[in-house]
This record gives sequence, C-alpha cells and structure tokens, in this order.
Amino acid sequence: MKPVCLVLGAGAGIGGTVGKKFANSGYHSVLCRRSDKEGLDKLVQNIEDAGGSASGFLLNVVEPDSIENLVAKIEADIGPIEVVIFNLGAQIGDRSLKETSYKMFELGWRMATFALFRLASSVCPLMEERGKGTILVTSATAAMRGNRGQHSHAAAMGGRRMLCQSLNAEFGPKGIHVAHILIDGSVDAPDTLGKMLGEEKFKQLRETKGQENDGLVLPEKIAETYFHIAQQHRSTWTNELDIRSFSDMPWWNH
Amino acid sequence: MKPVCLVLGAGAGIGGTVGKKFANSGYHSVLCRRSDKEGLDKLVQNIEDAGGSASGFLLNVVEPDSIENLVAKIEADIGPIEVVIFNLGAQIGDRSLKETSYKMFELGWRMATFALFRLASSVCPLMEERGKGTILVTSATAAMRGNRGQHSHAAAMGGRRMLCQSLNAEFGPKGIHVAHILIDGSVDAPDTLGKMLGEEKFKQLRETKGQENDGLVLPEKIAETYFHIAQQHRSTWTNELDIRSFSDMPWWNH
Amino acid sequence: MKPVCLVLGAGAGIGGTVGKKFANSGYHSVLCRRSDKEGLDKLVQNIEDAGGSASGFLLNVVEPDSIENLVAKIEADIGPIEVVIFNLGAQIGDRSLKETSYKMFELGWRMATFALFRLASSVCPLMEERGKGTILVTSATAAMRGNRGQHSHAAAMGGRRMLCQSLNAEFGPKGIHVAHILIDGSVDAPDTLGKMLGEEKFKQLRETKGQENDGLVLPEKIAETYFHIAQQHRSTWTNELDIRSFSDMPWWNH
Amino acid sequence: MKPVCLVLGAGAGIGGTVGKKFANSGYHSVLCRRSDKEGLDKLVQNIEDAGGSASGFLLNVVEPDSIENLVAKIEADIGPIEVVIFNLGAQIGDRSLKETSYKMFELGWRMATFALFRLASSVCPLMEERGKGTILVTSATAAMRGNRGQHSHAAAMGGRRMLCQSLNAEFGPKGIHVAHILIDGSVDAPDTLGKMLGEEKFKQLRETKGQENDGLVLPEKIAETYFHIAQQHRSTWTNELDIRSFSDMPWWNH
Repeated sequence: MKPVCLVLGAGAGIGGTVGKKFANSGYHSVLCRRSDKEGLDKLVQNIEDAGGSASGFLLNVVEPDSIENLVAKIEADIGPIEVVIFNLGAQIGDRSLKETSYKMFELGWRMATFALFRLASSVCPLMEERGKGTILVTSATAAMRGNRGQHSHAAAMGGRRMLCQSLNAEFGPKGIHVAHILIDGSVDAPDTLGKMLGEEKFKQLRETKGQENDGLVLPEKIAETYFHIAQQHRSTWTNELDIRSFSDMPWWNH
Repeated sequence: MKPVCLVLGAGAGIGGTVGKKFANSGYHSVLCRRSDKEGLDKLVQNIEDAGGSASGFLLNVVEPDSIENLVAKIEADIGPIEVVIFNLGAQIGDRSLKETSYKMFELGWRMATFALFRLASSVCPLMEERGKGTILVTSATAAMRGNRGQHSHAAAMGGRRMLCQSLNAEFGPKGIHVAHILIDGSVDAPDTLGKMLGEEKFKQLRETKGQENDGLVLPEKIAETYFHIAQQHRSTWTNELDIRSFSDMPWWNH
Repeated sequence: MKPVCLVLGAGAGIGGTVGKKFANSGYHSVLCRRSDKEGLDKLVQNIEDAGGSASGFLLNVVEPDSIENLVAKIEADIGPIEVVIFNLGAQIGDRSLKETSYKMFELGWRMATFALFRLASSVCPLMEERGKGTILVTSATAAMRGNRGQHSHAAAMGGRRMLCQSLNAEFGPKGIHVAHILIDGSVDAPDTLGKMLGEEKFKQLRETKGQENDGLVLPEKIAETYFHIAQQHRSTWTNELDIRSFSDMPWWNH
Repeated sequence: MKPVCLVLGAGAGIGGTVGKKFANSGYHSVLCRRSDKEGLDKLVQNIEDAGGSASGFLLNVVEPDSIENLVAKIEADIGPIEVVIFNLGAQIGDRSLKETSYKMFELGWRMATFALFRLASSVCPLMEERGKGTILVTSATAAMRGNRGQHSHAAAMGGRRMLCQSLNAEFGPKGIHVAHILIDGSVDAPDTLGKMLGEEKFKQLRETKGQENDGLVLPEKIAETYFHIAQQHRSTWTNELDIRSFSDMPWWNH
C-alpha cells in the first residue's frame, strides 16, 4: 500500500502540481478542491496516465465535518496519510476596512486558520501513533506583515503561522514535521492568479514577467522543494523557508 | 466635553489601571469588562473619588452587536472616542492539541482577533472623520511565536498582530495611531494571573518574583508607557514595542 | 551632583536634542561629536542659557582609547554616567558592492558596532556596580533588513542590534536598561540628512514632506520618547521599539 | 571543465561533507580550512577515491588578500566558481562582556562578517558576468537573537545576515542566489562541537542526544538540503531557511 499524500487546495497551481510530484514519486495523492469536478478528474487522469496513483474529491473545507470525514475516509479506504499539503489560501485582493465585511473576515479565518487546526486535530493523533508524518503549509507574505487592504488575509495568515509553530512545538518531537513555506511572489497559476487578474491581464503578465524573467514562481519547480522538505531526515528539518523568483524583491526590501 | 478613552477588558490589571491613568489625565474613561459588576463599580468610584470621570459597562464582546452598539452609545451619550485600549486576551493556559476543542479555538479568535476587527470597523470611520485617534492593543508573546500548548492563543494573537499592521497601514496616514504593545512577562494582576494560578500560588509568586525582583510587570508602571504612546506627536509614532521586567528574559532569549 | 547623560553623536538632530531634553530634566549632559566645535559650543551654551548643565567634547570614536578615556574622564571629573545615548550612525548612502571599499565597510563596523561594544565594555562595569544605568541606542531600519546598496550600513546595524540583545541578556538583570530604538524614517536634522541631501533639496523636503505632513521625524518630539524610555520602572522595560512619522510606511509594508 | 564549488571552512562537519556531496554530483570541490593539512588531504583523497574531483588549500581567511588571491587562483587554474559554501563560524563559547576582549570581538567580525564581504567582493563580479552563481552561507541562531555571553558571536552573525540580504538585493536579479541557512542546533561535527566540548563529553552527547534521538544535526543529511538549495530553479529561490533536529526546540520557543 502506497503512503498517502493529501492535498487540500489542489488546483492547477501549487497544489495540483505538488500532488502530481508526490504521485510520481511513490505516493498515492488525494487531491481535494472546492469546485471544478472536470478539472479535478483531468488532474487525476493525468497522474494515472503517467503511471501514478491518485484520487480526487470535491470538498468545501468550511463545512463542518468535511475535513474530519475526509481524513477518516482516506485512512479507512485508501491508506495512512503520511504527507499533507495544506494549500488553502484566503487572498481576496486588496480591500479597505470598509469593504471587508465581517463575513469575509470570518471566512478568511475559517479557510486559512481554522481549517488547518481542524486538519491537524484529525490527522496528528494518527501520525503521532505512527511516529511520523509531514504537514507542509503553503503560506503567503501576509503571514509576515500586514499590508494595506489585507485585513482579512493578514489576520488569517499571521494566525496560521503561529499555529504552525505551536503544532511543531508539540508534534515535532513526536516525529511530525510541520513546515511553513512562504511563497513570496506571484505563482504562475491560471486558476488563482489567473482568475484574480482576468484572462487578458494574466496572459500579459505571463508573457512579460513570467517568460522573460522567470518572474512568476513555477509550480513544477516549487514542487521539487516541497518534495525535498518532505524527505528531509529528522535530524535536519526545516520549519520555515521562503520562496520567490530571483527577479522579485523579498518582502523585507523596498 | 472630555475626550473618551474606551477600555475593553478593564479588570484589576492593565486595563483598569490604564483606564484610571487616562481618567486622571483629562479623559473620560469608559471601562468595560465581561463580569464582576461590583469590581467594575468600585473601579469607577475609585476614579471619581480621585476627581476623575468614568463610566462602566458589563459587556460580552463575543455577542453580536455588543461592541458595535457600545461604540454608538458612547459616541451618542458620552463623547468622541479618542483612545481605545484593546485589552482582551485569549490565554487559556497550556493545552495540548487534543485538549483544545474547536469551540475554544474559535472563542480565542472571537475574543482576541475578530473583536479587534469589529472594534476597528466601528471606530475607525469615526476617527478617520475627525482626523485622529489612537488604538493601543495589549498583546502577548504568543503574537511573536507559537509555543507548545498555545494553539488557540498563538493563532489568535498572531492574527491580531498582522491585523494591527494592516490597520496601521490603512489608517496611520489618516491620523489613527495603532500600537501593538507586547507584554512579554507576567503581570501583577489578581484577576487574570491570580485566577489562573489560584490564590495561594499567586501570593507566593508576588512575594518572590514580584517584590524582591520587580519580576512582575506592575500595571501602574505600564500605564505610564501606554499614556506616553498615546501622546506621541504624529511625526514620531511607535507602532510596536515590547515590555518586560528587567529580571525576565526576553522571549527571543533562552 | 547631577547624574550624567552621555551623548555620543550629538549633532543638531536626535543626539543634541535628546541631550538638551535630559539637561532640562535634571541631568548633566555630556555632548560628544566628531567635528564642528562651534556648533558644539552653541549647543552647550543653549542648554546653559535655559538653566541646564552640559559639557561638550570633540571626539573621534574610531580612535583607540577615545571612548575609554572619555568615560574615565567623565566619571572622574563630572559624575556617574547614568544614561548613555548612543547615537552614532554609519549611513553612507546607497552604494553598490563595487563602490563599497573594504575601508568603508570596516569604518561602518567601527563606528556603529565596535564603538558600542567599547562603550559598553567601559561603562557597564561601572553601572553594574551601581546597580543601575541606561543605554539607549538609536538604530535604523537597516538593523532589520538589508536593502540594496546598504552592504556596509546593514551589516553594521544588524550586528549592533544583536549586540544590544546580548548586552541586555547579560546586564538587564543587573539593572542596566538597554533599548534599541529603531528610527524608521527621515529625521528633520540639518547636519545629517541636510548634509546628505544638500541644502536646496533638504529645504524642499522640509517644506513638502516635513511641514505639510509631519513626514520628517522631529527631534524634539523623539526626545520625549527617549526620555520616557529612560524613566521606565524596572518592572516595565522596553527593549525594542520603532519610531516613524504617521505619514510614512513602516519598513515591513510596501 | 567541471564547475567549481568553493568551500570556506571545510572541516569534518558541514563544510567538508557538503563539499563531498557537490564533488559526488559533478562539481570540482575546492576545500579550504585554516589548519590540519593531514585532515584536509584525507578529505580530498576520500573524494577522489569515490570518483570525485577536489583540491585542498590551507587558508587563514583573516589575512589580507587570502580570499582575494584564492578566488583569482581558482578561476585561473581550476575553473569558474559556480557555488560558494561560506561555512566560517565565529563561535567562541559563552563569555561575559568582561571576558570578551576587543581582539576577540574584532576577530569574530573579521571571520564571520568581513570575510563574507571580501568573498562577495571577489566573486560576485565574476558571477555577475556569467549571469549565475550561488552563495550558501551557514549561519547560526545568533544571527536571529543575541543571547547572554554571545556578544562577539551575535554581533558578527547578525551583521552577516543583514549582509546576505543586501547582497541578495543587489545580486539576486543578476542571477546570483544568496541563501542564509540557519543551523539552529548542535551539529555532529568532531572538529568544531567535538573540540569545544572535549572528547569525553562529545562522545557522551553523541550517544545520548545523537544516536537515540537524532538530536544532533547530521552533516550528510544537511548536505542534501544545501545541494537542493543550490539547484533550485531561478523562479523559485529560497533566501532564508532554518534547519534543526526534530527533537530540538526551535530558537523562538522556550
């Protein structure tokens, strides 16, 4: 039985691509996303065509019991979850305080912070029993500093970073590797950045920033680093790292 | 009409003491806490006996509309809110992941993060119109790093720090001073630390760590710094600072 | 005998103004700068005219024994040094690696890092014996992150911040208060910013950024915060704080 | 002609082991250390026996022109330097301020900070011309916070981290990848940790902390991560990461 790599937030960007990488490397990848059944099926097919093994689930993580039931189901039907790629974001673009409703603010927390807490509550006891496991959390610059217009996003991401640290403090010594991976730049992902910008603008960005300067983080390249982190020997774990294009300024510079 | 200093979380520690300091210095302090009407009345009486001006409200901040209605009421009945002391904590002691229920985790966020968002949503538009205002947020070490057993607290505080930064980014240039005050040590407060430890243990701590070494942060002393920050000229604002006893190690050392 | 406030780097900006504030508040201020005897004498005269007490020394801090002899001389002739304002910078403007000579890089370290180490080596044993003392270090954004062109400045400032922390770790519990004060913005100082920009450009900046928006940090206002930090009760010390104009973006935003 | 991997500080711990990894993976490794010609020769022999290619140099980096001449010599005689492993430390154990001489403090800076500046000044123009290059800097927890007794070490490391950031800010967009790798734990290295502790104590530590818990960072394992970072695609660079044993607490916890 292959070990399972569970991906929450498996779109055409980081999530799906990292899932594919793990599937190509001996894991059974369980890909979950909120919508687009067709895209999901294609992703799974894609992996299987390449000789890998994967399943797909549509999942609305903010619904009660969604994550909990999923974890139980996978463990019962597919196999032990060895790696989780927690790839849920909560970016809603820049919005002034006035434009940020209570509902939005709460939703950001439910998706980016509370969902990780629920995932950890479901999966850590199992991993602890097995003495090993890996939880890789895709994070954003908003985890490090709150910019204008980022009230919801920054609060959710900042809380999540601290949660990663407290999870690591409790479960690291029990063999569970929690890593907070800060993606400090735009990702070449049609279904997140692409949607946010609109087709035309995204195409332009890809042509200028992307192709000429490798200025967009490439999901296939990032997948190499996710996989590396998941394979680190337990004497040598990375808990926090950042990733950005060489042509981008790190968040701390300006 | 005196300017109003609104204190959320006005117990016998930092909140009440800072409220008293502002009342002694020309503000009308509005003191809010969740329970203990008697203690609250005494605090108000205390301030009035010293020639100051204050009001008291019992308030459960997690209830919908509680903060919103309070702000509206104060502005209508008492005067313009010039300073807010946001002194709500979410410390529930060290608890393993297993011992941290979903409800607790959510409550931490509701009290420490979402309540600040709601407060800001209510009060910032008013302050913005007046071109000035101050929001001082009492924070804890958990805003800087997530320790073992601090899942709920760290997630709430970490989110809150980022929220302070995004609020400052939007409202600083509009004259609203948001300061994140990290209390990196135990406070000599009978109704928070005292309750958490129990009477006997708290008395002991006070006698050893407190009296001999000034190892407990003294609320009356801390009030001086809160007041100073609130009076800083707008060319010279502090957005983040830490406070600890001289005999305590900062969080970054060990 | 008045307690002494020693200011290293006492020009017309932060250093001199903070020195004046302490002199107006019961200290004897010893003002040191590298050059401009006339300006220094005027500063001292100024303080004395206002009823304060001060002395002035020209001092090249990078010269061996300069700081050491000064401390000995003050302690012998004037009085016990209770407060040090360490206000030496090492900003040399933006320079590419190629334009940053070994000599410049070393000079930056000698002025901003090594000079603090020498000062601390001279004064901490005396303060430790007396069980009290305060060292306030004026710092810059380069202590927090290294920007392009800041090789020398960032290396010197980053080292200095860590030195402040290690000094505090050793001497805090012995009653010596070390505070790292991050000035995250342009200061309205004719003899540093003014010189760097040139008279005409500085005048312009003052008229636009300064007067209209209070966008330049005002030394007289900053002096209030320096003085407050130096007076904090030892149960309530601040070790790190930042200062910027309300109309400036903090370094972490962009 | 193989690309060159230059290792400064190539002992039996991280430096030598990373050099071996690169030599095993197609690079010619140039191993430099201050003393122990015999150990160095053995390291080179070792690599060659395994089919790799390497050279060894004894080098006192604090001597003027030592690094500069070395870089010139390698480029002339061996090949283009593509990767630098800057593995020079400045740990001298815990020393009080009184026990830290001016000479020690300066030496720390010369080895850990200034040597990197000199290395960068020598090698970056060459890398810039070639449009690529990698500089991996082994760092220590003292780069993040200054502990008691770490005056020299923390000042040197803190300065170095900021220097890495300013180097990256200038040279990242020119294709030079600068990564600051924080080793936040004890490394299983006989000639650094071993020497500091003494043979007996080191043996004990290895047996308890090391073997039972993988509590000592293993150089062969760490070499995997160094190599991975050096191979990252330029759309996906990591500039800062930390490494520690799963059984160790991160520096931010306590």
